[in-house]
Amino acid sequence: MYFNSIELLGLIAGAITSMGFIPQLLKGYKTKKLEDVSYFMPIIIAIGMAIWLIYGILKDALAIICANTFAIICCLILIIMKKRYS
Amino acid sequence: MYFNSIELLGLIAGAITSMGFIPQLLKGYKTKKLEDVSYFMPIIIAIGMAIWLIYGILKDALAIICANTFAIICCLILIIMKKRYS
Repeated sequence: MYFNSIELLGLIAGAITSMGFIPQLLKGYKTKKLEDVSYFMPIIIAIGMAIWLIYGILKDALAIICANTFAIICCLILIIMKKRYS
Repeated sequence: MYFNSIELLGLIAGAITSMGFIPQLLKGYKTKKLEDVSYFMPIIIAIGMAIWLIYGILKDALAIICANTFAIICCLILIIMKKRYS
């Protein structure tokens, strides 16, 4: 596995970006309202991150695989929550 | 600039992920409502993508620089729109 300080920066970036959906999930769970959230946002981001996941698998980069798997799951939960609360 | 088919996949992934905020911005602009959108989501994602941007600059990867600059601008617009419509 390829690893240096620049790659570490990428891993930190991936981890933070992936965590971005957590406050949205918590807010949605608390208020039971996701009306103003666009369906297409988590759908498009999940598609993009699924490609990042393939990239991570091809590059054998565990952190990219983990960060994107986590983010895709968050996007799917957001889509399901929005569908449920509508 | 380093470039091959796997990197191309990463660039496509970055471009799609970055475009994910556009439908949210359009929805917010049309409805003038972003109450259910969490402030922390675009803030955390923008921080993550700012680190991706530094990564892209250090790696001299133009597509990563472009995709993340675009995404950061989208996040900032979303934050400003939410503040305005509240």
